[in-house]
Amino acid sequence: MNETLILLIHCPDREGLVASVTALIRGFAGNIVDLDQHVDASRRVFFMRVEWTPRDAGPEAVGRFEETFAAQVAAPYQMHWRLERASRRPRVAVFVSRYGHCLYDILARWESAEWPIDIPLIVSNHRDLEAVAARHGIRYEHVPVTGATRPEAEQRQIGLLHEAGVDLVILARYMQIVSPAFIDAMKGNVINIHHSFLPAFAGGQPYHAAHQRGVKIIGATSHYVTADLDAGPIIAQDVATVSHKDSVEDMVRKGRDLEKIVLARAVYAHLRHEVLVFDNRTVVFD
Amino acid sequence: MNETLILLIHCPDREGLVASVTALIRGFAGNIVDLDQHVDASRRVFFMRVEWTPRDAGPEAVGRFEETFAAQVAAPYQMHWRLERASRRPRVAVFVSRYGHCLYDILARWESAEWPIDIPLIVSNHRDLEAVAARHGIRYEHVPVTGATRPEAEQRQIGLLHEAGVDLVILARYMQIVSPAFIDAMKGNVINIHHSFLPAFAGGQPYHAAHQRGVKIIGATSHYVTADLDAGPIIAQDVATVSHKDSVEDMVRKGRDLEKIVLARAVYAHLRHEVLVFDNRTVVFD
Amino acid sequence: MNETLILLIHCPDREGLVASVTALIRGFAGNIVDLDQHVDASRRVFFMRVEWTPRDAGPEAVGRFEETFAAQVAAPYQMHWRLERASRRPRVAVFVSRYGHCLYDILARWESAEWPIDIPLIVSNHRDLEAVAARHGIRYEHVPVTGATRPEAEQRQIGLLHEAGVDLVILARYMQIVSPAFIDAMKGNVINIHHSFLPAFAGGQPYHAAHQRGVKIIGATSHYVTADLDAGPIIAQDVATVSHKDSVEDMVRKGRDLEKIVLARAVYAHLRHEVLVFDNRTVVFD
Amino acid sequence: MNETLILLIHCPDREGLVASVTALIRGFAGNIVDLDQHVDASRRVFFMRVEWTPRDAGPEAVGRFEETFAAQVAAPYQMHWRLERASRRPRVAVFVSRYGHCLYDILARWESAEWPIDIPLIVSNHRDLEAVAARHGIRYEHVPVTGATRPEAEQRQIGLLHEAGVDLVILARYMQIVSPAFIDAMKGNVINIHHSFLPAFAGGQPYHAAHQRGVKIIGATSHYVTADLDAGPIIAQDVATVSHKDSVEDMVRKGRDLEKIVLARAVYAHLRHEVLVFDNRTVVFD
Repeated sequence: MNETLILLIHCPDREGLVASVTALIRGFAGNIVDLDQHVDASRRVFFMRVEWTPRDAGPEAVGRFEETFAAQVAAPYQMHWRLERASRRPRVAVFVSRYGHCLYDILARWESAEWPIDIPLIVSNHRDLEAVAARHGIRYEHVPVTGATRPEAEQRQIGLLHEAGVDLVILARYMQIVSPAFIDAMKGNVINIHHSFLPAFAGGQPYHAAHQRGVKIIGATSHYVTADLDAGPIIAQDVATVSHKDSVEDMVRKGRDLEKIVLARAVYAHLRHEVLVFDNRTVVFD
Repeated sequence: MNETLILLIHCPDREGLVASVTALIRGFAGNIVDLDQHVDASRRVFFMRVEWTPRDAGPEAVGRFEETFAAQVAAPYQMHWRLERASRRPRVAVFVSRYGHCLYDILARWESAEWPIDIPLIVSNHRDLEAVAARHGIRYEHVPVTGATRPEAEQRQIGLLHEAGVDLVILARYMQIVSPAFIDAMKGNVINIHHSFLPAFAGGQPYHAAHQRGVKIIGATSHYVTADLDAGPIIAQDVATVSHKDSVEDMVRKGRDLEKIVLARAVYAHLRHEVLVFDNRTVVFD
Repeated sequence: MNETLILLIHCPDREGLVASVTALIRGFAGNIVDLDQHVDASRRVFFMRVEWTPRDAGPEAVGRFEETFAAQVAAPYQMHWRLERASRRPRVAVFVSRYGHCLYDILARWESAEWPIDIPLIVSNHRDLEAVAARHGIRYEHVPVTGATRPEAEQRQIGLLHEAGVDLVILARYMQIVSPAFIDAMKGNVINIHHSFLPAFAGGQPYHAAHQRGVKIIGATSHYVTADLDAGPIIAQDVATVSHKDSVEDMVRKGRDLEKIVLARAVYAHLRHEVLVFDNRTVVFD
Repeated sequence: MNETLILLIHCPDREGLVASVTALIRGFAGNIVDLDQHVDASRRVFFMRVEWTPRDAGPEAVGRFEETFAAQVAAPYQMHWRLERASRRPRVAVFVSRYGHCLYDILARWESAEWPIDIPLIVSNHRDLEAVAARHGIRYEHVPVTGATRPEAEQRQIGLLHEAGVDLVILARYMQIVSPAFIDAMKGNVINIHHSFLPAFAGGQPYHAAHQRGVKIIGATSHYVTADLDAGPIIAQDVATVSHKDSVEDMVRKGRDLEKIVLARAVYAHLRHEVLVFDNRTVVFD
């Protein structure tokens, strides 16, 4: 299989952006296999994702492309950009608490090669899922967290993540707040699953709140984690119907299926480099 | 077509409720065609909807059933109940503002006999849709409303509703608050459509708020109107997917289709006597 | 509001296609507001939709763009292409039989200016909906059709369509087969709504068949009409859940809402020039 | 927790059915916690599921209830019926081929106690998933199947199932036909997941067929297995949207999530004794 390169861009909207980018790729003998662009008309911001197979995918050729792009295209248009290689295998850490359904689902996708990732590390504030990690041969670190010990606990977590060379942290129903320092250490590459249709029922106990309100639809939301709890940029959401017959426990059960699927969709889009964040919202080129 | 009777009940849960009700119906030679019951286990409340064809549907026979039921079943079990005749044609008033999509949809369902109702009255705080009413031969009353004139405006509206013998008011994107006095005058038979997935984005401008938050799904909610704005018992909800490509205007457009369909589902359930309200939540036996 | 131009292209996939198109648009001082492209990797076909605001939208400037594009880009790359003006108001004819729900919905969208179209003509093989057309001031032509008279009936229909300058025919539950000659006369611009989730339950009586099979979900499908009945390129589909409680009549009722919404989505995509057809499938750039 | 009993009934529709059943339960001091009934008006068949907590759940008391019910209610009304104890733990065998996603999902639900079942046996015509079974300590039997050896292979499978005391077989993407003899040996308790929205794309390669047809929605269907391939009574279905961007491989990937969720819903309804089969269709009292 040929290597493909993926370029993600956002910048102030101007004439000639698509033509400039595609001309340069063409100049480097690249064959575009996918191009998606979007203009946020109200904010006058341009977003683009372009994927191509270069004739030469060696580090030198790609380095030269990057230099030329930076100088001739990115700088004059004030672009924020990054270039990704489709072949690079991300290293992912999963953070869990006591609920296993999202972890089981992630491990199944990893083991069956649905996701081309490595999982060097599972971190939890409890020991409940240690055996699950063990049987997959994945390191499991039990890092208890209390309000008082959070700073030290996070320092230990950040150390573990750096040591394991982790690119992405998945909070798989981790149920703990993470600090801005933690998010910074991961350069924002922290994805959470919230068990409600945000912004409805933010905070804890969303199924209880949904039951109390008598809604007819419940949801789940996967988002990048930001300092503002439950308010990060949304990557994926989905819903399921409920009725008066559903107790809180039924909602929790139906919600589990939503949560694992929505989290998986968000992670997959991230792994494919399909997500751009701007002004606390995502552009998902799927 | 035979007449069918519909009995709606809620009461404290006890043993023998279903048997008592069905035995009495049987005693009156009724053939049950549909029976749905639900126990809210956490609140220990029993809900039931039973529909049957009586051998004799004349007013005397039905009157005798009601008396016997009240004395022998409802009283000992402390039931709240009502008996409806499927053949009775509800009289419906539609309240609108400037947006026509829900009104058009309601009129189409009425004219094509999808809904067995009469629409003697359309009320609006604007004149925009007067011609639509006129061409269907429906009385259109323009009742301007301002903060200062609301009490008199509502008095006039209530007078119009009573005069026209209206059973149900549909707020079809009416965009005005109605007072507790108005709701009481209609005995709670006021259904609204809110253009968001409540409780997310309650209040005005929900599509702007949804766009700002970057949600991936928008919704609409139909509910009985209560004194607490946007907090009444939810009858129906539905959602549609959106993406970064959708501007506020796109969301408004997609939302219109949601709104009219969700409102129609809620009204239909109400017209079929499938909805029970208890403690600000609905039981919808559909 | 500025004029926007829309270019739709498909051709064999080659390097440099996006760059060539966008460079030419840039050369004519156009500002791209939307660009979507897709490569069907298995067939090696390239699809593109690009929308831009030209500095000069006058007929001469646009004519020069077309000539240059045809010679310098389209010819060398063997492109199939068309250029549309967003400001051009399509002329639409609606064909109906006895069911009014899709017609009502279309007229509401037209009257409320949701769709920027003209509707000069409604054609039907029955007189049932004549009054609906009359009250909107739209010409209604009753053209009875039997197996024996179909050819003459279609000749009359084609005459009416040409006379009214119609661009698009919507078969809004028309329930009659149309011939290849009719489709050719409309250059393929004929959109139908089928009341099933095609290819399941093709042919007549799909709700009866769905009920008989005991499916838990019903659907509707909107497609371009081709000579092969119910097998044309699908533009839009949607579904609704059903249960054992739903009789055939309930399915028909739920299906009506699906049909009108799905048909409207397909027509809207067509009106916005978002649909490309290739090899009996659609690319819908929405 | 109290024991609950579940009675499932179908019989010709007659007056007094609900009253007779509920009166008897009341006579045995049972408190009904859930009752659902349905009349198929076109076939005049009555269906009922009733769940109650008996004062005495001992084998003698329940035995007496069964005898009395059989004689006094079931016989005069010609009922087909069965009585289930909610506390009884079903024994489930999972049949797989090479695809693991449904098996992973089932094992996660079992291990996390979401499903109160035992899984004594996994059977496969391949060895691929043997290690997955081993790490959960579940017996894995490799039973190769070819057209010629199917009868002997099935005899061996039936022997294994009887030996393990299996109540329910889940075909978790097993990809092999099972014979009427096999289905009989399991008394019809065989649930399959088909990777299409049946009846569309029955048979093999449904995603290829769906891609070829250009559908905009794909689905999955879980059904009881009958002699007629892919035509058994449908228990659950769900769908996901696709577009021109989705290759066959994308559909397969999206379909995996559908398949495992839909299969799980069907199995859960079966485990809760919510499914009645009549005339190749299901009544699902959920």
